[in-house]
Amino acid sequence: MIKAGILGGGQLGRMLLQEAANYPVITHVMENDVECPAARLCHHFVKGDITRYEDVVKFGEGLDVLTIEIENVNVEALFALEEKGVTIIPRPAALQTIKNKILQKEFYQQHEIPTAPFKVLSNRNDLQANHDMLPAVHKLATGGYDGKGVQIIRNAQEIALGFDAPAVLEKMIPIAKEIAITVAVAQGGQTTVYPPVEMVFDPSLNLLDFQLCPASLPEKVLWKAEAMAISVARNLGSAGLFAVEMFVDHDNNVWVNETAPRVHNSGHHTIEAHYSSQFDMLWRIMLNYPLGNTAMIMPSIMINILGANGYAGEARAEGLEEVLTIPNAFVHLYGKRETKPGRKMGHATVISHERQELIHQANRIRTTLSIKGSKAI
Amino acid sequence: MIKAGILGGGQLGRMLLQEAANYPVITHVMENDVECPAARLCHHFVKGDITRYEDVVKFGEGLDVLTIEIENVNVEALFALEEKGVTIIPRPAALQTIKNKILQKEFYQQHEIPTAPFKVLSNRNDLQANHDMLPAVHKLATGGYDGKGVQIIRNAQEIALGFDAPAVLEKMIPIAKEIAITVAVAQGGQTTVYPPVEMVFDPSLNLLDFQLCPASLPEKVLWKAEAMAISVARNLGSAGLFAVEMFVDHDNNVWVNETAPRVHNSGHHTIEAHYSSQFDMLWRIMLNYPLGNTAMIMPSIMINILGANGYAGEARAEGLEEVLTIPNAFVHLYGKRETKPGRKMGHATVISHERQELIHQANRIRTTLSIKGSKAI
Repeated sequence: MIKAGILGGGQLGRMLLQEAANYPVITHVMENDVECPAARLCHHFVKGDITRYEDVVKFGEGLDVLTIEIENVNVEALFALEEKGVTIIPRPAALQTIKNKILQKEFYQQHEIPTAPFKVLSNRNDLQANHDMLPAVHKLATGGYDGKGVQIIRNAQEIALGFDAPAVLEKMIPIAKEIAITVAVAQGGQTTVYPPVEMVFDPSLNLLDFQLCPASLPEKVLWKAEAMAISVARNLGSAGLFAVEMFVDHDNNVWVNETAPRVHNSGHHTIEAHYSSQFDMLWRIMLNYPLGNTAMIMPSIMINILGANGYAGEARAEGLEEVLTIPNAFVHLYGKRETKPGRKMGHATVISHERQELIHQANRIRTTLSIKGSKAI
Repeated sequence: MIKAGILGGGQLGRMLLQEAANYPVITHVMENDVECPAARLCHHFVKGDITRYEDVVKFGEGLDVLTIEIENVNVEALFALEEKGVTIIPRPAALQTIKNKILQKEFYQQHEIPTAPFKVLSNRNDLQANHDMLPAVHKLATGGYDGKGVQIIRNAQEIALGFDAPAVLEKMIPIAKEIAITVAVAQGGQTTVYPPVEMVFDPSLNLLDFQLCPASLPEKVLWKAEAMAISVARNLGSAGLFAVEMFVDHDNNVWVNETAPRVHNSGHHTIEAHYSSQFDMLWRIMLNYPLGNTAMIMPSIMINILGANGYAGEARAEGLEEVLTIPNAFVHLYGKRETKPGRKMGHATVISHERQELIHQANRIRTTLSIKGSKAI
């Protein structure tokens, strides 16, 4: 049987492992926390630091194929493992491009993929030099995740709040709609595309509030977005799953925001609402099987279940009973013992042919279910 | 978090654990084989003998709730654990009734649930005394599983082949259709019913060949079958899942054949084709959540993937690539290293609104996919 490894043991790893059990594969996971969501669903769990060269090389040696569930891994180690013949998905070169927001933006530019105009900044002083671009989006080159490392600098007064590190400064696009398209690329180069999802974000945390599939888009915008997403995936030159986040502006221009070279929050609805889920698809890619069917079974809405504000500590679900009575909702709780404000504790997907029903139930879940910690903070 | 145990670590346990990862629950599995399909998907695996009193009691102590994935467990130990306050699903008394085919038949009789007329036999000599019932179905009271322990005695000449042990001798019902209905009973007594499935068996192995959902039944037959299935579940007086297998004869009479008080082969299609799968449903019951929605998302067909005749040893899937290109098929391989003729190595479910498409794809899977062992036997 093929030996497959996952770097990172969070909820994405957990959901990958739920699907892995449909295929003949021996699973290995490395993560620093032995109580992480993926720790008990794999054949072999290794406690280790995914950002540490030695740990990653040691973990990957002897595996047939290795993937990531988070970008923040040691890429040099992946290059070394690729040298030794381990199949790395995505390829380290693609990951290296994506991981650094400066390289990622330059990649779009180089391949003529529309993306918001930007400047590369070395430190906070460069913000001052580019004050004519404000208001603008300021993104740390490396280390950002889940809304961290990204902020809006509105005016010259806010420059003092800017990151004092290598970063990208992006012109703000007047966003009409935020969408994402996941592209699957097989080891043999075959490509397939999921229908676009439309995202609504919580403005305070920059976390997904809910997400509709399919996105409601004029046909020509859809074609453009699909072509751009495929172009991103193809030009990265790697097998894998690529979640390409895009903005649509008020003139129906489409701009690539950023790409995740892995299973992604924007694909959770595919578990129930599509024939081949993003997790199933990544296993097909890793095990060198034919790509799956990206078609919808039914339209869907997905809502993240986040740790409630004002609480931390041992997690307790309030309102779960009611949410579990919603006849067309699927609830996924990630088994995290500890919650804190905004922490991703689970998600729920609702499927229905009626868009109003989707939105109604998503709002019902959001207002009913609350994951509170044992301590008020 | 609730601590839940499963006695048995086969594919049913494996699929239960895949679903468990959607809920906050600590999972424990006991099975003699450390390489069993469920061993690597639980928090705590215990190597032990599920038929041995001491092993089961030791495993169950300290758990909040305990279930089975096979009837062949030590029931006395479950009674002892129930005494100690562990919630056992199904209750040991219900399992005891089901486990022994004599008690099971008497239970149907006692509750006026139609079942084929039968005689209780102590040994092979009793077969001779009841030769006027032949041809008849001869079922061992205990120890039968997957077609083992059940045979047809056609005539007096075949009596010599009969089991020489306590057994049931059943009048043969002229079967027009074989169906199954799964009933879910919550700990609070609430009940819900899945749509009926229609089964086609391989006559040589008495194993499910394929299974359609929903069964095509006249409405009045459906009502009767549902009422009977609910009556079985209610009268067993236990929370749990009850897969009630029934015959429909040529006069549209319905007869209960037998009941499995657990997740069951006849419910595998619910993973993709229904809102709440049988595995999800059992977790809802065990964790004392509201029952799930049994409604279909789409009609389905399910086919078992069995070890090919003539081969044993290390399993190798032939034709898997082609089957994985079928756009509406979901393939589940159970990760068993060793195959033998007729061993359940996996299953596939196809969903479609078109019955002809379901049958076409199921036949395609059956004729394409073959699990062969490394040695010809």
